[in-house]
Amino acid sequence: MRAAAMARPSAIICDDAYLAFARLTQWWAARIRPASPAGIHPSAVVDPTAHVDPSATVSALSVIGPAATIAAHAVIGSHCVVERGASVGAGTVLKPRVVLGENCSIGSRCIVHSGAVIGADGFGFAPSQGRWEKIEQLGAVRIGDDVEIGANSCVDRGALDDTVLADGVKLDNLVQIAHNVQVGANTAMAGCVGIAGSARIGANCTIGGGAIVLGHLELVDDVHVSAATVISRSILKPGQYSGVFPFDDNAAWEKNAATLRQLHALRDRLRAMEKKIA
Amino acid sequence: MRAAAMARPSAIICDDAYLAFARLTQWWAARIRPASPAGIHPSAVVDPTAHVDPSATVSALSVIGPAATIAAHAVIGSHCVVERGASVGAGTVLKPRVVLGENCSIGSRCIVHSGAVIGADGFGFAPSQGRWEKIEQLGAVRIGDDVEIGANSCVDRGALDDTVLADGVKLDNLVQIAHNVQVGANTAMAGCVGIAGSARIGANCTIGGGAIVLGHLELVDDVHVSAATVISRSILKPGQYSGVFPFDDNAAWEKNAATLRQLHALRDRLRAMEKKIA
Amino acid sequence: MRAAAMARPSAIICDDAYLAFARLTQWWAARIRPASPAGIHPSAVVDPTAHVDPSATVSALSVIGPAATIAAHAVIGSHCVVERGASVGAGTVLKPRVVLGENCSIGSRCIVHSGAVIGADGFGFAPSQGRWEKIEQLGAVRIGDDVEIGANSCVDRGALDDTVLADGVKLDNLVQIAHNVQVGANTAMAGCVGIAGSARIGANCTIGGGAIVLGHLELVDDVHVSAATVISRSILKPGQYSGVFPFDDNAAWEKNAATLRQLHALRDRLRAMEKKIA
Repeated sequence: MRAAAMARPSAIICDDAYLAFARLTQWWAARIRPASPAGIHPSAVVDPTAHVDPSATVSALSVIGPAATIAAHAVIGSHCVVERGASVGAGTVLKPRVVLGENCSIGSRCIVHSGAVIGADGFGFAPSQGRWEKIEQLGAVRIGDDVEIGANSCVDRGALDDTVLADGVKLDNLVQIAHNVQVGANTAMAGCVGIAGSARIGANCTIGGGAIVLGHLELVDDVHVSAATVISRSILKPGQYSGVFPFDDNAAWEKNAATLRQLHALRDRLRAMEKKIA
Repeated sequence: MRAAAMARPSAIICDDAYLAFARLTQWWAARIRPASPAGIHPSAVVDPTAHVDPSATVSALSVIGPAATIAAHAVIGSHCVVERGASVGAGTVLKPRVVLGENCSIGSRCIVHSGAVIGADGFGFAPSQGRWEKIEQLGAVRIGDDVEIGANSCVDRGALDDTVLADGVKLDNLVQIAHNVQVGANTAMAGCVGIAGSARIGANCTIGGGAIVLGHLELVDDVHVSAATVISRSILKPGQYSGVFPFDDNAAWEKNAATLRQLHALRDRLRAMEKKIA
Repeated sequence: MRAAAMARPSAIICDDAYLAFARLTQWWAARIRPASPAGIHPSAVVDPTAHVDPSATVSALSVIGPAATIAAHAVIGSHCVVERGASVGAGTVLKPRVVLGENCSIGSRCIVHSGAVIGADGFGFAPSQGRWEKIEQLGAVRIGDDVEIGANSCVDRGALDDTVLADGVKLDNLVQIAHNVQVGANTAMAGCVGIAGSARIGANCTIGGGAIVLGHLELVDDVHVSAATVISRSILKPGQYSGVFPFDDNAAWEKNAATLRQLHALRDRLRAMEKKIA
């Protein structure tokens, strides 16, 4: 996802070599790959009351009725499950083995890769006498246009309100989006990211692989989180944020890690010395 | 999962507002959602020798024979796979696309969300002349009553003994439970947690999202692990445990992280100074 | 995966007790488990032009034509999806609910556990006027012989070249292998590992659970990465590498973590004192 900075001045034939490369791959894919035929694979399990809407647009789909609605130019792959009240926009492709749960909607021109689960229950329980009482998850998932969701990723339904992915969001594989999360337009998350419940991520953010955002936090637009960083408080200023223990050979790490557990005490000793000298 | 601390004194109408909220969602869900009809969806692949047991209770199910046993009031969703010798208790719901492997058992009133895989082989190999020799995983998975397992989570079968989740355990999405792990009653784990082989987690624990527990460790009851923390030795005392590198803007993090790699040396320099002054 | 160091001298009856144990489990499994019958489960969705090749060997399979090729002694489990141009070697078992995408090949005697997705699109986009333009992923996935891939793991197809897992690679559950990654022979990765795009991992490496390797890095042969470690630069020397924040009770961690954010400043204060004294 970094721009290829390889074009020498004499070779520049377009403003953005990386974008040109993307376009070239699209042109090539269109030539060599037969398009998946629009329609519902016979092995998919679609709510029996679903109807295919030849004129379905995103706005039309936003009114969700009891029956599932699938745009005429959508592709529902093999072994997919589309539950009642769900809607799928025009040109959207559900690859094999995607689950789109009850009342969840996905816009136009999206791609959902195999194994993704959209609309499982959010993880909500109330403690009650040492046990957990289930909080039924009554919301759904609303996904905009031009969204891509990676293989085996999960987007949970909201508790009362919906979980929302805005237009142009891109999620890699094995990403977990908890209930009531809101992700702004064109934000991209690499593999193995986890976003905890009710977090609000702004637009045009990037979240590096394996990063975690804790629940109920806010990240404003244009925040960039480095891989494997744990975001434990809201970020209200755009920028790049990091927090990873630097790896080392094992022996060096062990010594530094052991010392780290005395760091606060070291600081106190340093202070004491500073006073003594002063 | 934190109690909603919003009820002002004058508004308290029940001992526990959060629990009341849970009950309200359950009442509402029962009204608006048609219950999944008990039974096996036609697209599910169930061991052909399986029999539906109208009187199945958990204790009856604990004796596993060669045929799968499914309680009369269980729901086996679309595209599920239930292998031979598996058993499913009364009132348990396997959402679409769940795999319940050979000889694995799950108790009553459980919910297993889409994509979960119960009973894949544990990850066991013996090194042999630079290659890995497979250790066949001969145990199974035993899951108690009132357990919930999130979407795309994995619970591996044991090597010799079984992997065990006790009653009331709640697992979020994309959780990995390795072979021979034992999880005590009512312990809850948030998304993306990984528990390595043969770890024993006590009852009433909570494990935050993205945390890792290494293999062969013991955590006693009432241990609470913060999100993204790596537990690298046993915890024999109840309490809250944490271990996360605090994130910062990238420039600040880089400076601190670089210094961290010299921390042990810094401690030695501090000691040397202390001696000099004393 | 550590050798069982329990055999006392008087009890040694073989050079390697752990290997003997592995062999014993294999012998036992062969006795108690009926072998999965070779062939394609009726619920699997296999490219309609696929042909079963009774003489298929790995080298024969390496020439991929437009039709899928499945060796006569392979097992394609229930609800699997094998797309056009894919190939499956002799003795390989796809457990239920595996996706093997277009043109992806897997060698002989492999095991792929349920929910694994081989050949989803790599995560590649070019930025364009604040949005993301998709880079079509034109490569495939090539997997050698004797490879095991865990439940719900993902191996993405390459952008132009292929993603490659060499012979004898073992991946645990919920592992993410991004596009164009190359993994050398007999390298093993525990659960929840993420390998970012174009990383090259050598042979005979072990990667601990939850570890992350960033993109475009190289790890030479015989590198061992501890659990939950983030590898952020290439490793050109064999050895054990670690980088984890040591956990502590929450109060102690908070103090040390807070101080860690001033570590660079502490170093400067220490330096200043050293100068003063000298």
